[in-house]
Amino acid sequence: MSKNPDGKQIKVGILGATGTVGQRFVTLLAKHPWFTIHVLGASSRSAGKPYTLAVMWKQTTPIPSVVRDMIVRECHPKHFAECAVIFSGLDADAAGDIESAFRSADLAIFSNAKNYRRDPSVPLIQQALQNPPLKKGFIVTNANCSTTGYVIPLRALEKAFGPIESCLVTTMQAISGAGYPGVPGLDIIDNVVPYIGGEEEKMEWETLKILGGIADGDDGVKTFDMHARHPLRVSASCNRVPVIDGHTMCVSVRFQQKPPPSPQQVREALVAYTPEAQSIGCPSVPVHAIFVHEEPDRPQPRLDRYYQDGAGVSVGRVRQCPVLDIKFVVLANNVSIGAATSSIINAELAVLKGVVKVE
Amino acid sequence: MSKNPDGKQIKVGILGATGTVGQRFVTLLAKHPWFTIHVLGASSRSAGKPYTLAVMWKQTTPIPSVVRDMIVRECHPKHFAECAVIFSGLDADAAGDIESAFRSADLAIFSNAKNYRRDPSVPLIQQALQNPPLKKGFIVTNANCSTTGYVIPLRALEKAFGPIESCLVTTMQAISGAGYPGVPGLDIIDNVVPYIGGEEEKMEWETLKILGGIADGDDGVKTFDMHARHPLRVSASCNRVPVIDGHTMCVSVRFQQKPPPSPQQVREALVAYTPEAQSIGCPSVPVHAIFVHEEPDRPQPRLDRYYQDGAGVSVGRVRQCPVLDIKFVVLANNVSIGAATSSIINAELAVLKGVVKVE
Amino acid sequence: MSKNPDGKQIKVGILGATGTVGQRFVTLLAKHPWFTIHVLGASSRSAGKPYTLAVMWKQTTPIPSVVRDMIVRECHPKHFAECAVIFSGLDADAAGDIESAFRSADLAIFSNAKNYRRDPSVPLIQQALQNPPLKKGFIVTNANCSTTGYVIPLRALEKAFGPIESCLVTTMQAISGAGYPGVPGLDIIDNVVPYIGGEEEKMEWETLKILGGIADGDDGVKTFDMHARHPLRVSASCNRVPVIDGHTMCVSVRFQQKPPPSPQQVREALVAYTPEAQSIGCPSVPVHAIFVHEEPDRPQPRLDRYYQDGAGVSVGRVRQCPVLDIKFVVLANNVSIGAATSSIINAELAVLKGVVKVE
Amino acid sequence: MSKNPDGKQIKVGILGATGTVGQRFVTLLAKHPWFTIHVLGASSRSAGKPYTLAVMWKQTTPIPSVVRDMIVRECHPKHFAECAVIFSGLDADAAGDIESAFRSADLAIFSNAKNYRRDPSVPLIQQALQNPPLKKGFIVTNANCSTTGYVIPLRALEKAFGPIESCLVTTMQAISGAGYPGVPGLDIIDNVVPYIGGEEEKMEWETLKILGGIADGDDGVKTFDMHARHPLRVSASCNRVPVIDGHTMCVSVRFQQKPPPSPQQVREALVAYTPEAQSIGCPSVPVHAIFVHEEPDRPQPRLDRYYQDGAGVSVGRVRQCPVLDIKFVVLANNVSIGAATSSIINAELAVLKGVVKVE
Repeated sequence: MSKNPDGKQIKVGILGATGTVGQRFVTLLAKHPWFTIHVLGASSRSAGKPYTLAVMWKQTTPIPSVVRDMIVRECHPKHFAECAVIFSGLDADAAGDIESAFRSADLAIFSNAKNYRRDPSVPLIQQALQNPPLKKGFIVTNANCSTTGYVIPLRALEKAFGPIESCLVTTMQAISGAGYPGVPGLDIIDNVVPYIGGEEEKMEWETLKILGGIADGDDGVKTFDMHARHPLRVSASCNRVPVIDGHTMCVSVRFQQKPPPSPQQVREALVAYTPEAQSIGCPSVPVHAIFVHEEPDRPQPRLDRYYQDGAGVSVGRVRQCPVLDIKFVVLANNVSIGAATSSIINAELAVLKGVVKVE
Repeated sequence: MSKNPDGKQIKVGILGATGTVGQRFVTLLAKHPWFTIHVLGASSRSAGKPYTLAVMWKQTTPIPSVVRDMIVRECHPKHFAECAVIFSGLDADAAGDIESAFRSADLAIFSNAKNYRRDPSVPLIQQALQNPPLKKGFIVTNANCSTTGYVIPLRALEKAFGPIESCLVTTMQAISGAGYPGVPGLDIIDNVVPYIGGEEEKMEWETLKILGGIADGDDGVKTFDMHARHPLRVSASCNRVPVIDGHTMCVSVRFQQKPPPSPQQVREALVAYTPEAQSIGCPSVPVHAIFVHEEPDRPQPRLDRYYQDGAGVSVGRVRQCPVLDIKFVVLANNVSIGAATSSIINAELAVLKGVVKVE
Repeated sequence: MSKNPDGKQIKVGILGATGTVGQRFVTLLAKHPWFTIHVLGASSRSAGKPYTLAVMWKQTTPIPSVVRDMIVRECHPKHFAECAVIFSGLDADAAGDIESAFRSADLAIFSNAKNYRRDPSVPLIQQALQNPPLKKGFIVTNANCSTTGYVIPLRALEKAFGPIESCLVTTMQAISGAGYPGVPGLDIIDNVVPYIGGEEEKMEWETLKILGGIADGDDGVKTFDMHARHPLRVSASCNRVPVIDGHTMCVSVRFQQKPPPSPQQVREALVAYTPEAQSIGCPSVPVHAIFVHEEPDRPQPRLDRYYQDGAGVSVGRVRQCPVLDIKFVVLANNVSIGAATSSIINAELAVLKGVVKVE
Repeated sequence: MSKNPDGKQIKVGILGATGTVGQRFVTLLAKHPWFTIHVLGASSRSAGKPYTLAVMWKQTTPIPSVVRDMIVRECHPKHFAECAVIFSGLDADAAGDIESAFRSADLAIFSNAKNYRRDPSVPLIQQALQNPPLKKGFIVTNANCSTTGYVIPLRALEKAFGPIESCLVTTMQAISGAGYPGVPGLDIIDNVVPYIGGEEEKMEWETLKILGGIADGDDGVKTFDMHARHPLRVSASCNRVPVIDGHTMCVSVRFQQKPPPSPQQVREALVAYTPEAQSIGCPSVPVHAIFVHEEPDRPQPRLDRYYQDGAGVSVGRVRQCPVLDIKFVVLANNVSIGAATSSIINAELAVLKGVVKVE
């Protein structure tokens, strides 16, 4: 089992612990090599109850015994003062105020909520974590569950071949991406809904922030450059399909580099990609950050979404695109690498880089 | 009810009458204003039996009474000599020889099989029907069920705004497109299969043939020009989704015309589009060849696929594409306009234009 | 087209017209031979708006033109005074007060809500409509959508073979039975939920009320006898399955008559059954009140639920039961004969029997 | 990890190793504490190829590395001579001859095929394994995947309360029970098929053989008594539903004992049940052979089928049955305890009881 730098257990709290993402945090953190669940936070309706009674458990494994009888607390910073790391699975309507209050209380929040993603002081997933330097009391957010999955191969391609000029992505997204109760069965069985409110806009700008890196401002202050030095155009079309877990995406890209890389070169670059979180030793990053399938009909959500516990992404069908340069299929488990696992890797990276202090 | 030019019933035959597409032909032709089902053809295993016993009926309406007791024949031209029109729902492995034999016997075949689509003497759906002149004894094929749906709006756009320069389409196709038994339930429930063998290639070249029109060859012989005068690049990504009927497609296009039309201009052009088959009076063409939805989340296969008996196509979400010019969603009922209905319209057009002689 | 006794159009109102059942009432009544939609009632949130803007339409056919611009009213009796018949698709939490107020205003309500089903003065579907005599101002309710479907063949069997002694029914119910949004997609895709709150109890006692007929009380007042003269035990197990429309039920019955009828006798009795509503000429009763399938694998919801517009029930697989006497499969379209169609037939019967006065 | 009696690895072979059940055997045996996969057998089409190329792998975990390059053999006894145990996942059309040949070659076959289930010398699952004594060279078969799941609680009830007099079971079976390709997607999405050929008969007689135990014949030969001493009537109604894995069953039972046990007594008896295979230490039997749910809406296949790796069965909703005595819901994972896992437990039991000799 991996060891954290200081070799001791790190106390963590979970905000929104009874919700869909919160349940996933609980499941993953209960078996984490470094992190120990210390506080579970939820709404005042749940506060005061043992977790087993407060939660409507919807995971396919039973409630971990370590939290079964833990008393749920309200989401107030005073209950979380001993936690070196706070994970937030709060809904957007609650996350704004609560996460802000926690940040003001000098706590380190790793959030799955969308509220602070556009905040210029808030990094979006690990690529952006190193700089600008984070003050004590900060928020690191996940990207949208569809964005996270496909920027990982895009990042690998930019690392190998330089800037991407344009990217067209069509998603076929699982219903778990909409939370619970989420999408009514009547709307999705035997159906496709070719619209997810706000999703296309999120994919289009989040990609720029994540891939853009850090720019030096005129005043010496570092900022996110939104891929401005190498303007990147992104067009997303988002669809909901009758799949429980796992977002499938058809991606076409055009590179600035001419001639563009061949499909074989792209395949090799994806296989070779090692994210910093992997090389530095984050325990939740899998062996294959990107798994490249050779079979013609993979990846498929039902067969591939739980491989490596859903912490990697799968890519297949890398081939020429007659309109742009290269096209391929990406599968990402939206509830793992697209949500809770992503936050956990962010926190592991923050620990290893000393951004979070372990006492 | 529409009247055909000569006001009399036209005898038709159906090849492959017990198969999935054949059943659809039977259902539609049993209530057709001009055509009368005269012969049902199927394999030797079925020949000699009454239709009711030969068929494993899978439609949601009962077997039409007019064919219940009709004795199924082998697919030999001698049984079909009195038929002015032959519809073929044969599988590809049978269609090659049988359709060729029927053509040699001076019969007019309107086929849903893929075998002769690339034949330079064979028109692909109605756009290409007028020329080059067809000799007595000919085949007119449908395009692939995914192609037919999305070329109708492309055709409308080219008519209004001139040549399209490139088109990127991602499909989410219903399982009925694979016939019966087709896609195993184990492969498709709670899943997406991001691959359909040969489908992307078909969409990419069929689009060129259908939209390309007729060219004058050096030797005075007219040929299909495969959109060669205005080279069009098409990139298709084809996916199978857990939907019974109705192919949903996300389409992005770039026009040659600069500046390109606005989304509103595109919407208006789609609404205004009247295909020749409609203006000339083919009874199976619906009032709205293209129905344009204003709601943000339409078209959806389960709600919109049976509108107008599936004979039109639905378009929605017309908007700017940050990479190409315009993007939108298309829904086409693959078993109606994508298959049997398309052949029937081709035949109606052939009757009205005198290509098929009604005695 | 059928004629009502007085040959004139009958004005009807619809309560809860924007809901799932209300939309179904609108769809059916817009093409009804006798009834004319005169008023649409909904909540104060919808009141004052044209129907097109008030409703989130979920039917597979477009909103009927006759109601598109009709202004929705609040559910107050004063707006419905001219209506000879009121159909109610209200939710249970609204139906109690509103239907009571309408009854007090001497209106005739045909309701799909569950609130007054147990009321001793309220008949449950048409079998019970004739007696006890209804005063001016009354409510007739539908049974639960699962009950209605299977009591029709039970009624036919009791008519042919005398009292049933016990009945064990296991249902596989469509999600549309739970209304909209109803069952979350996350709960039902690739799943069965073996529990529907209150459903088993409803099936168990409603069956007794519907089949029980009318008893003479000691004081000369007629009451529903709840099958008390021939005690009938019913055991229901209710399951939700991933089906959009159509409840499938496996039914086993034991007869009081010894020896019990054979499967063939049961089949013949079901085919021969003509409910009073059919013999008296209700236009919404189909030709086959019960359609008996001979194929071994029918009825199936996807193939058979829309036959005869969903107004009949399908029965198949009539065979010996090794534990009770006879077992068979029933399919009933829960949104048609199980809901709106049932109310409409009740109202047609009330008109034909003079219970509702047509002015 | 459990130790087998002799503490050494036991070589096993798998017949039909490339099929659906065979893949499941491979997955489970690759991590088994006692058994080592020694030979993989398949049809002559696959023989000679490395397993990776011979198989169309459909599991959600990758092919175990230990078998990836193993060369597949034909199903001939000579290749399996060193195997102490042979598992058979053969299809019924191949199993008859091959299993017979293996038995004649003095091999011990644990089969999932149906061919020899009725054979009076062949035990059906572990309950019947001890007697009559098996000669060297024998077949032990699984029961049908639906039978296995529900006889486990029936067995527990008979152990606690004496003979069951009658049992009525309605199944909602997963499509994986039909193998691959199995049920076409077109037949099962948004549908229920109320018929599975031969399944009801299998459940009805297999139950008698499994629960019946061993009888002394007049000639001193022990035979299976088919529950003849306590005649048990079973009525099964089998349905296919759109679920990938996991058979859900609604069961009603009547006991011979009067008064019958209460629901609470039944619950306690199910929880307390320890099958012999568990008490004797078979490593594949889970802690909870029967897990009893207290929540009103469980078990559900999607949430509960993989609990304990699918090796236990789940029971819920234990309650009074108004027609028989007690009713409840059973969930059993048809591909685990209903198929491969059941054979493996049979083999473990045979090892521990010395029926299979470990050299």
